[in-house]
Amino acid sequence: MRIGILTGGGDCPGLNAVIRAIVRTSENRYGSSVVGFRDGWRGLLEDRKERLRFDDRVDSILARGGTILGTARVNPEILRSGLDRIQQTLDDNGIDVLIPIGGEGTLTAAHWLSESGVPVVGVPKTIDNDIACTDYTFGFNTALAIATEAIDRLHTTAESHQRVMLVEVMGRHAGWIALHSGLAAGAHLTLIPEQPFDVDEVCSMVKRRFQRGDSHFICVVAEGAEPKPDSMTLREGGVDEFGHKRFTGVAQQLGAEIERRIGKEVRTTVLGHVQRGGTPTAYDRVLATRFGINATDAAHTGEHGKMVALRGSEIELVSLGEAVDHLKVVPRNRYDEAAAFFG
Amino acid sequence: MRIGILTGGGDCPGLNAVIRAIVRTSENRYGSSVVGFRDGWRGLLEDRKERLRFDDRVDSILARGGTILGTARVNPEILRSGLDRIQQTLDDNGIDVLIPIGGEGTLTAAHWLSESGVPVVGVPKTIDNDIACTDYTFGFNTALAIATEAIDRLHTTAESHQRVMLVEVMGRHAGWIALHSGLAAGAHLTLIPEQPFDVDEVCSMVKRRFQRGDSHFICVVAEGAEPKPDSMTLREGGVDEFGHKRFTGVAQQLGAEIERRIGKEVRTTVLGHVQRGGTPTAYDRVLATRFGINATDAAHTGEHGKMVALRGSEIELVSLGEAVDHLKVVPRNRYDEAAAFFG
Amino acid sequence: MRIGILTGGGDCPGLNAVIRAIVRTSENRYGSSVVGFRDGWRGLLEDRKERLRFDDRVDSILARGGTILGTARVNPEILRSGLDRIQQTLDDNGIDVLIPIGGEGTLTAAHWLSESGVPVVGVPKTIDNDIACTDYTFGFNTALAIATEAIDRLHTTAESHQRVMLVEVMGRHAGWIALHSGLAAGAHLTLIPEQPFDVDEVCSMVKRRFQRGDSHFICVVAEGAEPKPDSMTLREGGVDEFGHKRFTGVAQQLGAEIERRIGKEVRTTVLGHVQRGGTPTAYDRVLATRFGINATDAAHTGEHGKMVALRGSEIELVSLGEAVDHLKVVPRNRYDEAAAFFG
Amino acid sequence: MRIGILTGGGDCPGLNAVIRAIVRTSENRYGSSVVGFRDGWRGLLEDRKERLRFDDRVDSILARGGTILGTARVNPEILRSGLDRIQQTLDDNGIDVLIPIGGEGTLTAAHWLSESGVPVVGVPKTIDNDIACTDYTFGFNTALAIATEAIDRLHTTAESHQRVMLVEVMGRHAGWIALHSGLAAGAHLTLIPEQPFDVDEVCSMVKRRFQRGDSHFICVVAEGAEPKPDSMTLREGGVDEFGHKRFTGVAQQLGAEIERRIGKEVRTTVLGHVQRGGTPTAYDRVLATRFGINATDAAHTGEHGKMVALRGSEIELVSLGEAVDHLKVVPRNRYDEAAAFFG
Repeated sequence: MRIGILTGGGDCPGLNAVIRAIVRTSENRYGSSVVGFRDGWRGLLEDRKERLRFDDRVDSILARGGTILGTARVNPEILRSGLDRIQQTLDDNGIDVLIPIGGEGTLTAAHWLSESGVPVVGVPKTIDNDIACTDYTFGFNTALAIATEAIDRLHTTAESHQRVMLVEVMGRHAGWIALHSGLAAGAHLTLIPEQPFDVDEVCSMVKRRFQRGDSHFICVVAEGAEPKPDSMTLREGGVDEFGHKRFTGVAQQLGAEIERRIGKEVRTTVLGHVQRGGTPTAYDRVLATRFGINATDAAHTGEHGKMVALRGSEIELVSLGEAVDHLKVVPRNRYDEAAAFFG
Repeated sequence: MRIGILTGGGDCPGLNAVIRAIVRTSENRYGSSVVGFRDGWRGLLEDRKERLRFDDRVDSILARGGTILGTARVNPEILRSGLDRIQQTLDDNGIDVLIPIGGEGTLTAAHWLSESGVPVVGVPKTIDNDIACTDYTFGFNTALAIATEAIDRLHTTAESHQRVMLVEVMGRHAGWIALHSGLAAGAHLTLIPEQPFDVDEVCSMVKRRFQRGDSHFICVVAEGAEPKPDSMTLREGGVDEFGHKRFTGVAQQLGAEIERRIGKEVRTTVLGHVQRGGTPTAYDRVLATRFGINATDAAHTGEHGKMVALRGSEIELVSLGEAVDHLKVVPRNRYDEAAAFFG
Repeated sequence: MRIGILTGGGDCPGLNAVIRAIVRTSENRYGSSVVGFRDGWRGLLEDRKERLRFDDRVDSILARGGTILGTARVNPEILRSGLDRIQQTLDDNGIDVLIPIGGEGTLTAAHWLSESGVPVVGVPKTIDNDIACTDYTFGFNTALAIATEAIDRLHTTAESHQRVMLVEVMGRHAGWIALHSGLAAGAHLTLIPEQPFDVDEVCSMVKRRFQRGDSHFICVVAEGAEPKPDSMTLREGGVDEFGHKRFTGVAQQLGAEIERRIGKEVRTTVLGHVQRGGTPTAYDRVLATRFGINATDAAHTGEHGKMVALRGSEIELVSLGEAVDHLKVVPRNRYDEAAAFFG
Repeated sequence: MRIGILTGGGDCPGLNAVIRAIVRTSENRYGSSVVGFRDGWRGLLEDRKERLRFDDRVDSILARGGTILGTARVNPEILRSGLDRIQQTLDDNGIDVLIPIGGEGTLTAAHWLSESGVPVVGVPKTIDNDIACTDYTFGFNTALAIATEAIDRLHTTAESHQRVMLVEVMGRHAGWIALHSGLAAGAHLTLIPEQPFDVDEVCSMVKRRFQRGDSHFICVVAEGAEPKPDSMTLREGGVDEFGHKRFTGVAQQLGAEIERRIGKEVRTTVLGHVQRGGTPTAYDRVLATRFGINATDAAHTGEHGKMVALRGSEIELVSLGEAVDHLKVVPRNRYDEAAAFFG
């Protein structure tokens, strides 16, 4: 058999571990060959690819961040209108099954392809952990580790200077990184997209803490967090080339507002891209490797139109259609759990 | 209400996070008070304890390894014959519910207490991840991260010197740390207690690898791994004060045997106690904190005789009796998954 | 003898290790006692202090970031006019020798005090490594390690997306962190305050790199880096409450300019406060501890008006006056060394 | 010009950074070419080499442990009798200057070659930091960081179980790693080869600490530490193939002795090879890179028979003969400094 793979969307620690596992499993277990398309769907639109073999190079990428195949974001409209072109490339290269590794956008395109008859097995990838039907996705654990270590560091500075410190972490539509890193690093408040915040309440909480004699206040803010409409006006961030909302620093704006309202020194740190690069954690390498093995198995046993998913400690197959139907956001009870430590 | 807690068995990153979460949740959500017994069950046998409050000290232990309550291993016989004494101490201190945090031994004692009518909620703790009925236990992720980082480091030395390197990791009865760290760090072979190994096969695999021109061979060995009876005789390790088998370095002995048989330079590293100490990973802090919150909830809602457990991304309650009924070992299919990368 | 200590200026990993070493050496070697003034010079202006003993608490701060004494920036004018008040506090508390631990501002005040007859021994502290007469200061190694790890992570993201990435690191007047982290992490360009940059040249370098087929461009920018006057106009950052220039993101502005000029996707990361908080590296703990030991020795042997300094692998004493006479900036030949890797 | 390089002796983090810097500087600054000999001196004895260019591969090794050239220990006798063969290989390959990167053995051979007229510039390499005439060597900082992190982790386990913990670190003839990691991690005792220890005194110190109510005792032991002759008999370790003394675990033996004498639970950890592998710290990458640049400069400017050395923050050239004349051991006053924290 001939397996095609691609990595789409933003890069994510663990992508290379998936690639390595697919190549190894295809060769060793099934005697199949693997073709890697370059720069996400673009490689399929433009027929740019390379033959991947389990040699020293592919063996050595297990712990390496990013993706050796490159990745790119493609406008969904262009993608939709290019599905014929993509099928043509798959045919030209004799690809029996395509394994796209990516987030919501990539998996949606995979679903479209599957609906039109192309054998596809999806591998979910998202730093933000917001893909439905799987307990976790690889990359999230690494982002969480990096964010937590950063917040750990901010604690001692905040304490020494008796400051309010805001730290903005990734999470446009779902607050998983903020929720977990806030819990892990002992934040005094965590703001997530799922629960609009009231600036008055935030300021009261800060004031109460310092009035009690506490030395500092650490607030974790997901980049997609939003104030309640009547509480504060956020400067707009505009839209990007795909019509997606762009974010322009809710933490910076909230920090300035707190400083203005309560006259306390506030410092804001935006973690940014360091959260998504570099060596994956052991957890993410294991999860990515298992996703790769199981996706390859599914490709060979005819379980197409599916996505690999973590359920408990098992890797299962779920329907691609279900997986892209909605985002997995933080439920109210999980936020309440974290809120036990606020203040 | 008055909650009693103790930490039993070997120490484990995350114990302090559980303690902190129990104190916080008891105080804030229920207005309850918490008494910490010192040095595991010994504190209950000898009525040594301290009142715990969510002050600066308890707040600050979230990221600290070990346990501020101390811990000790107690002979199960002594423990069984001391159950009356333990109940007496609980009565004397007006403890309404006891939350023991520990491994198989501690949870078994908790089960005994529960059977005899004491309200108990267990929190599972094991580096080795071998407690049944829960997907993971805290401490395991930290141990995995440490072991993987160590094996990552050994790769470059092994490559530069074209060596065979064996690394012994924790896991007396279950090979989870070995399995996961071997997968995460790209080991060429992983030996676990669940799958007795054949020294001839190990040596053949090593030879084949070097004959193919590969530069090195990394083998991860769980401390409880055992050779097939007719394959090699392991020096006995004797028994400890509780009659438990003591291990004396299967990796060292296997390393010497490989060196003897194939004349290749072998180096062995025994990771030992560094795997269980120090700052817990973010993952373990979140899991430990959630265990603490949910155990406190169960204590207050009358869900006694239960143990908190991770199922998927939810914390659930399972029966203590079921949880201590057997150890969770590595199933054959999980080992086969890893074996795809051997050789 | 009675030793007074304070920590002034921005916090810095290793401050607590100095405090611990002073307390230990004073007690054990000299039978002296130590008084810690709170929040930098403010503690002396307002007579807020605590008696420090080498107990569990002080023993345990070795690896902890920040400063248990707190710190604060004080307006130099206020400080100068408060010297009498400071001397009064020292007299009131029976302080024989004062050991201020701080940066240029703190050491300058220490020099003033020394000139007016107060026995003083200074300990240099600066993340930025810009204090003269000492090879290194503690905190710098930690900041370097954090910045380098962050840049390591950005490499894989930049590669996968074929991007230009700018990363802003600390260094207002001296580019040491940028220089070293750029060398350590394989940056393709490093911009420092000592060498004004030409935006045209930067853009040409970026273009050449991508034309050669390279996958990405990483540029490290010290926060105090400046464009040549005719090359680009930097938005002004204003001044802070002490009349110090405030910086407003040279990296962000340069990034936007590069994107505008060459139409390539640029991403900018500002590392910010994570560089100065958290656990010090082993190197910094050793240096800070040795500074503490040797400052205490100097306090007791009458070597006043001096500052401890690292020279090679020895700790020596240098004149406070000389040390605060000028900042230690990156010399041209060190920048040329790094420039061998640019492009 | 044509530069030859080799890496000899045990591997060490930073070797690849030196190689990369030599290749880059040779090509960019001098238009010279570089030939890398494989597996240390063996590559010169057997004429095995490769042409090195500053391409993607060499650019990417900056942060990678080990050495892409391979390394091997060679019997000094064989080396001495093979000097003619080595010169022949250099001639055959048209090598103008040889830059051997290695420890005492490698630099001694380099000195012999230099004495017989071969243009040589040495680069010192040793985990142990025991090469004379240079403040530090690369690799040491990484080993120190790894050892310190491990000891940090052991603290919490020792505390929780009220144990004595011994940790054996590298250092056969010089105790630098033990000295620095003991200082950095707050050890209660550090034993180094330069200061033979008395087992009675060690046991008394342990007993006093527990009698004072302290919770644990951490002792760092250099692998070459030795008891005073009448204090304890160490099992002999034999000699290796070069007649060098082999060490067999002084920490294990001392631990057993302490347990026997004072009846306290002792645990011993031997860090072993993890200290020398893996990603170098930022400090080591900078030092290694600067060594590489400056060695290349010296090769081209005719400063032969020299070794690059760190003096303060400058790289200088020292005589090879002087550098290999004696090992740099820990002086008494540095040990006394650390001893202020013992007990």
